[in-house]
Amino acid sequence: MTDKDAILAANAAFYTAFLSGAFDELAGLWADDNDISCIHPGWPVIIGRAAVIGSWRDILMSPHRPRITCREPYAIVSGDTGRVLCVELIAPMALAASNHFRRIDGVWRMIHHQSSPIAQMAGQSPDDAPPTPRQVH
Amino acid sequence: MTDKDAILAANAAFYTAFLSGAFDELAGLWADDNDISCIHPGWPVIIGRAAVIGSWRDILMSPHRPRITCREPYAIVSGDTGRVLCVELIAPMALAASNHFRRIDGVWRMIHHQSSPIAQMAGQSPDDAPPTPRQVH
Repeated sequence: MTDKDAILAANAAFYTAFLSGAFDELAGLWADDNDISCIHPGWPVIIGRAAVIGSWRDILMSPHRPRITCREPYAIVSGDTGRVLCVELIAPMALAASNHFRRIDGVWRMIHHQSSPIAQMAGQSPDDAPPTPRQVH
Repeated sequence: MTDKDAILAANAAFYTAFLSGAFDELAGLWADDNDISCIHPGWPVIIGRAAVIGSWRDILMSPHRPRITCREPYAIVSGDTGRVLCVELIAPMALAASNHFRRIDGVWRMIHHQSSPIAQMAGQSPDDAPPTPRQVH
């Protein structure tokens, strides 16, 4: 398994844990220290294990927990750090997200998550396909 | 100068370059490869040097270029990577931002930027102070 495959697997595990409401699994995917951070859509920055993991507990336990699907994951890895850029579908919205990882004792652990709504283009209906990441290589 | 001071200085240089419309300086703060990425408010993910730097050129050249002030910068560094979490003030809005850096040949270069509007709380006027990052250490 390449580093990119491994980080994409960690990213997929994050969305699987969220979808199934598996709080312990989701919490275990994050690095176990206070240097983790998160910016939920519309939220201010949150920093530190208690605040970040607590925010995910609140979201998972909410009766209005959204159903999130990850699309178009794209991995960038450099040494022991990397990130996955993707589209999060929370019908009818699409969000642009980045999930940042560090390899700790051989395991890719999440250190930062941020997602933000993609503005809808004029004339675009909610049923349209979400925008595809613009890649120039 | 500690690593945190150095990454905060790189972060400050980014906002100074933006404020003064100095495109070459802003472009030079980014890593010089295709593994850079950016998510502007409301935009989809953009990846690669040409797309990312081109987006900043478009924004800087726009007659509607916003005036952005960086507040509450908070640095997290681990080895040769790190990030600065901060509030961006674009009156009357506040955005939560993360700027991610990698130390390349001794210089902290930007590899990812993402900022997203902070939802206004009920009863909050645009003149209120922006939310402070929640930090639990």
